[in-house]
Amino acid sequence: MSLKLTLLGSNSAIPSVNRWTTSQFLSINGCGVLIDCGEGCQIRLKNFGVRFNSINQIYISHLHGDHFFGLVGLISSFHLLGRKIPLTVFCPNGLKQIIDLQLELSLTKLNYELIFIETNPLEVNVVYDCDKYSVTSFPLLHSLPTTGFFFKEKYKQPNIKKNFIIEHNLSIEEIQKLKAGKDYVDENGEIFKNEDVTYNKSIAKSYAYCSDTRFCPEIVPVFQNTDLIYHEATYTSAFQHLAEERLHSTAKEAAIIAKMANAKQLIIGHFSKRYSNSADLLIEAQEVFPNTIVAEDGLVIDC
Amino acid sequence: MSLKLTLLGSNSAIPSVNRWTTSQFLSINGCGVLIDCGEGCQIRLKNFGVRFNSINQIYISHLHGDHFFGLVGLISSFHLLGRKIPLTVFCPNGLKQIIDLQLELSLTKLNYELIFIETNPLEVNVVYDCDKYSVTSFPLLHSLPTTGFFFKEKYKQPNIKKNFIIEHNLSIEEIQKLKAGKDYVDENGEIFKNEDVTYNKSIAKSYAYCSDTRFCPEIVPVFQNTDLIYHEATYTSAFQHLAEERLHSTAKEAAIIAKMANAKQLIIGHFSKRYSNSADLLIEAQEVFPNTIVAEDGLVIDC
Repeated sequence: MSLKLTLLGSNSAIPSVNRWTTSQFLSINGCGVLIDCGEGCQIRLKNFGVRFNSINQIYISHLHGDHFFGLVGLISSFHLLGRKIPLTVFCPNGLKQIIDLQLELSLTKLNYELIFIETNPLEVNVVYDCDKYSVTSFPLLHSLPTTGFFFKEKYKQPNIKKNFIIEHNLSIEEIQKLKAGKDYVDENGEIFKNEDVTYNKSIAKSYAYCSDTRFCPEIVPVFQNTDLIYHEATYTSAFQHLAEERLHSTAKEAAIIAKMANAKQLIIGHFSKRYSNSADLLIEAQEVFPNTIVAEDGLVIDC
Repeated sequence: MSLKLTLLGSNSAIPSVNRWTTSQFLSINGCGVLIDCGEGCQIRLKNFGVRFNSINQIYISHLHGDHFFGLVGLISSFHLLGRKIPLTVFCPNGLKQIIDLQLELSLTKLNYELIFIETNPLEVNVVYDCDKYSVTSFPLLHSLPTTGFFFKEKYKQPNIKKNFIIEHNLSIEEIQKLKAGKDYVDENGEIFKNEDVTYNKSIAKSYAYCSDTRFCPEIVPVFQNTDLIYHEATYTSAFQHLAEERLHSTAKEAAIIAKMANAKQLIIGHFSKRYSNSADLLIEAQEVFPNTIVAEDGLVIDC
C-alpha cells in the first residue's frame, strides 16, 4: 500500500513566483485525489509530472480564492482534452454555482460528468468510502465555512499460504479468522502464528489535511495516530494576536496538534508573506514536534 | 511617447509549461493596461517584472476561460495588497456577475472601487478616451460575443521655443497654430519652419489586439496604419477547415489582415496544441507579411 503526497502550491493568500497558492495531489492506494486547487494548479500538475487522468476526486476545503481559483481552469482543460470519466468535487456550498455560471457563460457543455458533493462544515462526516480508502471531513475554525479532510487507506487482508490451507483443510471460517490477523490452533492444540502462514500483509497509511484554521484541538481524535499531517502555520507565535484575529494558526499550534494526534510527520505551510523564509516557523514547530518539515512547491512525501 | 507590449501568456485554450493562456500588458503613453487575463496572470506579471500598481484598466475580449480565468485572482490580490485606486474592467456582459459571485461567496468586500464597463460586440465603439490615449472596441467573429481593442496614443502638441515667443510677441492664436504644426509667417512675410521653432515633437503610436476570431477583413479600417498588431493564428492553412469550423484564423489570414491594415509589425499567437513549435505558422505568415514575429511568454515589443 502506498500514500504519496505531492505539494503543488504551498503559499498563503497571494502566489509568489516560487510558492503558488494551496494545492496538493495525493496518491492513495493507487487512486489520485486533488486537495484544494489554487490558481495555476493545472500548470503545477504539469510542472511536477502529475497526469491529469490520475485525478478522479477533488476536495476543496473552503471558498477563499487561494484554495479554489484554479478549479474552473482545470475542469475546462479536462473537457478540452476529451475527458470522459466522471469527476467528483467535494466542496462547500456555493462552489457548484461558481463553476456552473462560468461554464454556462462560456457555452461549455462538459463531455464528462461533473458531480458536486457538499461538505458539512459543522460535523465530522465520512464523505467517501470505497474498498481502497475512506475520506472523513471535519470542521475547522476559519472566517468562512471550512473543513479539513482525513484520508485513510483501507487495510488489505493478507493472503494465506496455499499449502497451509490444503494441509490443514481450513474451513471458510478458519480462513476468515486468519485474514483478520488471528493465529491458527489445530485440533491437537498446536499454535501456528499468523505471520508464519500469511503473506502480503499491508499497513494502511493515513493523511490529515488541516487547511486554514484557528487552533482547534477538538478535531484531533478524528485523525489520531495519522502517519502524516499537513497543518497551516500562517504565523510564528510572535504574531499570536494576528492568528487569533484572522483565524489562523501559529507554527507552535500546528505542532501541538501533530503532537496531540501522535502523528508520525508534520508538514507546515501557508506562511504569511511577512516571512521571507521559513526558518523561524520551522524552528518553532520543531521545538514541540521534531519531525516537522516545511511545505515547498514540488515537494513529494512518500509514506 | 512610448508604447511597450509585454506578452504574459501566448497559448491557446490550455496552458503549457512555457506558454500560458492569453494575457498582455501594454504600457501606453505612461499608463498601464492589461489585455485579457488568462489563469496565472498575476504570477506572470511577477515573472516578467510588471508592477501590480501600474495596472489601472483591464480589457477582456470574451468569456472563454483562457482569456479571463486569471481575473478573479488578480482582483483578489490587488485587494489583499491594500489597493486603493479604482480598477476599470472593460468586458462582455456576464463577467461582472462571475466576479461578484466569487467575491460575495468569499465574503470579500474590496477596499478599492471595481468598475465594469460592458463592451458591445456588435459595434465599433470608443470605450475609453483621455488626453493620453484612446481605446476603440470592435467586433470580432467567434463562437462567443468577442471584441478586439485598438489602443491609440494621443498626439502630444510640441512646445515652442520660449525665445521665439518673446522675440515675435506671439499671440495665443499664433501659438496654437504652431502647436498644430503650421509654420509661422511674420509681418514681413518671413517664413519660420515649424520644426525650427518647436521641440518635443511626438509620434502617436498604436496597437491593435485581435483576439480569437475568424478572418474578418471588415474590421481593418478601425486600425488602419497601426504600428503593431497582434492577431490570433490558431492554425496553418493546412487546417483552414478547422479555422472555419471553430471560428479561428490561420497564420496566412492573420498576415493578410496585417497587410491590409498597412501595419508596421505583426505578432501571431494562440497556436493550436497540435503544433509542437511555431516554425510553420511563422513561415506561412511571413510569406504574406514579412515583419511577423511569434508571440512568446515574456516577449517585450517596444514601439
